[in-house]
Amino acid sequence: MLTDLYQFSMSYGYWRQGMHEKEAIFHLFFRRNPLHGDYVVASGLSEVIDFLNTFQFTDDDIDYLKSLKTPCFSADFLAYLKMLRFTGDIHAVPEGSVVFANEPLLRIKAPLMLCQLLETPLINLLNFSSGVASLASRIRTLVGNDMLSEFGLRRAQGPNGGLTASYAAYLGGFDATSNVLAGQRFQIPVVGTMSHSWVMAFDSELAAFEAYASVMPDNVVLLLDTYDTNIGIEHAITVGKSLKERGYQLKGVRLDSGELASLARSVREKLNRAGFYDTKIMASGDLTENRIEELKSVEAPIDGWGVGTYLSTNYDQPSLDMVYKLGAIRKNEHWEYKLKRSDNHIKTSDPGILQVKRFCCDKKWLRDVIYHEDFGVTQSELNSAEKSHDLLVPIFKEGKLVYSQPTLSDRRNYCLEQVKQFHASKSMNYSVKRDPQLMALKQKLMEESVW
Amino acid sequence: MLTDLYQFSMSYGYWRQGMHEKEAIFHLFFRRNPLHGDYVVASGLSEVIDFLNTFQFTDDDIDYLKSLKTPCFSADFLAYLKMLRFTGDIHAVPEGSVVFANEPLLRIKAPLMLCQLLETPLINLLNFSSGVASLASRIRTLVGNDMLSEFGLRRAQGPNGGLTASYAAYLGGFDATSNVLAGQRFQIPVVGTMSHSWVMAFDSELAAFEAYASVMPDNVVLLLDTYDTNIGIEHAITVGKSLKERGYQLKGVRLDSGELASLARSVREKLNRAGFYDTKIMASGDLTENRIEELKSVEAPIDGWGVGTYLSTNYDQPSLDMVYKLGAIRKNEHWEYKLKRSDNHIKTSDPGILQVKRFCCDKKWLRDVIYHEDFGVTQSELNSAEKSHDLLVPIFKEGKLVYSQPTLSDRRNYCLEQVKQFHASKSMNYSVKRDPQLMALKQKLMEESVW
Repeated sequence: MLTDLYQFSMSYGYWRQGMHEKEAIFHLFFRRNPLHGDYVVASGLSEVIDFLNTFQFTDDDIDYLKSLKTPCFSADFLAYLKMLRFTGDIHAVPEGSVVFANEPLLRIKAPLMLCQLLETPLINLLNFSSGVASLASRIRTLVGNDMLSEFGLRRAQGPNGGLTASYAAYLGGFDATSNVLAGQRFQIPVVGTMSHSWVMAFDSELAAFEAYASVMPDNVVLLLDTYDTNIGIEHAITVGKSLKERGYQLKGVRLDSGELASLARSVREKLNRAGFYDTKIMASGDLTENRIEELKSVEAPIDGWGVGTYLSTNYDQPSLDMVYKLGAIRKNEHWEYKLKRSDNHIKTSDPGILQVKRFCCDKKWLRDVIYHEDFGVTQSELNSAEKSHDLLVPIFKEGKLVYSQPTLSDRRNYCLEQVKQFHASKSMNYSVKRDPQLMALKQKLMEESVW
Repeated sequence: MLTDLYQFSMSYGYWRQGMHEKEAIFHLFFRRNPLHGDYVVASGLSEVIDFLNTFQFTDDDIDYLKSLKTPCFSADFLAYLKMLRFTGDIHAVPEGSVVFANEPLLRIKAPLMLCQLLETPLINLLNFSSGVASLASRIRTLVGNDMLSEFGLRRAQGPNGGLTASYAAYLGGFDATSNVLAGQRFQIPVVGTMSHSWVMAFDSELAAFEAYASVMPDNVVLLLDTYDTNIGIEHAITVGKSLKERGYQLKGVRLDSGELASLARSVREKLNRAGFYDTKIMASGDLTENRIEELKSVEAPIDGWGVGTYLSTNYDQPSLDMVYKLGAIRKNEHWEYKLKRSDNHIKTSDPGILQVKRFCCDKKWLRDVIYHEDFGVTQSELNSAEKSHDLLVPIFKEGKLVYSQPTLSDRRNYCLEQVKQFHASKSMNYSVKRDPQLMALKQKLMEESVW
């Protein structure tokens, strides 16, 4: 039921027209790369797999659809819906893949009606997740090996806005999340020590720090800015010394407001002067991609970063523009290729049955070619010295899952590797092209008058 | 488990310190009104009620918490968690209420540990929902009585980002949603007819329109821009005529791209010339608050609006800045009042046990006074000619739900009424003040050195 009503209206229309089982091909892709980035990290396939594996309408769903006045579905259509399962083929790029505008992240071949019903959930499950993974991956690139934690649950867009963000942030290269549900659900490392209210609940900041250190001496990261960071650090050092006497160490301090660059420098100096060389400085508090870049560029001595709302809502671009376009529809024995024309050239879609070939040489990427699977890559585009592979791999075959999903940790490593390869490949004039035969088909269809 | 790990760390700390059952008061409020608006529509309380009514940890949750290395929770603490239920008091403003920056939307009185664990989910459930309801309400004000539909599910932030948005859009004054799950779950009217892929699945646009009209003649809203809106409208009129002959009417047409103002004018003219005076023109396609305002200001003949991504992700401000601040903590028999100080004055919170009184006269609002419930509103602020009422009403009493929730449709009507009253009250120099006694307490606490 996680779909738009018009998908049901159209399904009913196809069904009444006897077109519902016509095979169709749709592609899911982004029209543009993300706002501040030049690539997309694909994320959300695991949710798509779960969704399709359990796709079916319950009796309650059917009763609800029966209750609608417009459109008024017939009983035999509703009976058909009740029996409907996912029976199509899915090809998709593995999670953590680096892809670009216009390259399909997912291709579905299925009966037209099923393709239509799945449009909304497929976009919903991939669009936001890929946006957050892309942002997380850019932040990972910015900070090198610094510790990165995702703290955004509270101001995310609903419970599973937050859950998806925690997942995608980890896939994109974050180390941990504050979100306990995400930790439990996905086995992502969870982190967190104290908030301002802990400090306020005691008679003084020092008492609050001491209480924390006495209860959990092996995990002491003290939040310094409840009253005044310059005084907070003195209290932290006092507590650090008593921890040391007990054989523990002050693991870290957290700066959550103020001028982070100068505060971090002065805190680092005070910690070092007191002998706390190994105590880490964490920063948080409305951090953004730009802010982190600035702080890195002035070499602020910050060892770890907690990124919240900005990451978990993909604040600068809360929704990427993923679309789902018809590429082909079966007419008798043949495929009829389709494109969505538009005055706005960028919105004219690629027709056919699309695949992407990535050409590589010595672990660097040379180029991607979007091509039509019925035509293959045009000979003139090939070079026998180059290796290549197709980005879209089989996920479902006639409704059966045929893809064996790596663990999340492996998907994350794959992503880190992909992003490194992409950055190494930029110097090679790496780019995305359309195959000449695909272009010729597109041109031909654009010239045909179909209305 | 929908919370941050530090809430568990602190809970464990309080528990080990014997402080976990100390009664505390926290307030949830916005520090600023939304970006383009001067008020907030409170939304999300119904989800909070569901959450608190079922709040408890399962055996799986406890096992997961037991599996963590840091923090390492003791067995008796985990046993305590397993028995934990919501036992506190909640006061909140009813859904659909118009409130302002710094006014609490919700106040909780509960054992300190419970308050802490609930911080994250309470913000999560109210912050986004109120943001969307506020935006929806502003759009409702812009368009008067035009039909408003929410179309944002596909590019919302996950399945229940979309679900929450559909709910909050309706509460804020939208008429309908495309989201079938929201329709089923909340009994919101659902709408939708066709997408570009319907048109593309047929040999021609005219054939696609005719097929739709033959299957669902009582619900024909034709999408005009798959190929060219100027040709689309001719096809729509052709189909409209044959519908008329069969005793039906062409309900509407939808413009989804291009220069909407001029397209709407030319489409209206063509429809009228052909006698289709009652056929509605719907607009959609990346509509924003500003875009709708522009189109209304040039009197574009648009009868209905479909707003998608912009609304469902609250695109211009994907997260409002709701916070949750400690106001008081029980010390022996007395309340100790607390504030969170900050160099940034706007971030210094109000101490105590807060309530808001709204003063009215002839259905217009005169002013709101944020006051401390232990002090009441200061006599000098009262005027016997004025009526007043408290905005925060009891929702839970010692863990029991004491609030009888109006139907969603009644909540929506209440919201529409509230927004009208607010706009009518702006001319009265309507404003929000803090009570003098509350200000005096705040001043006193700010001066006290507590660190």
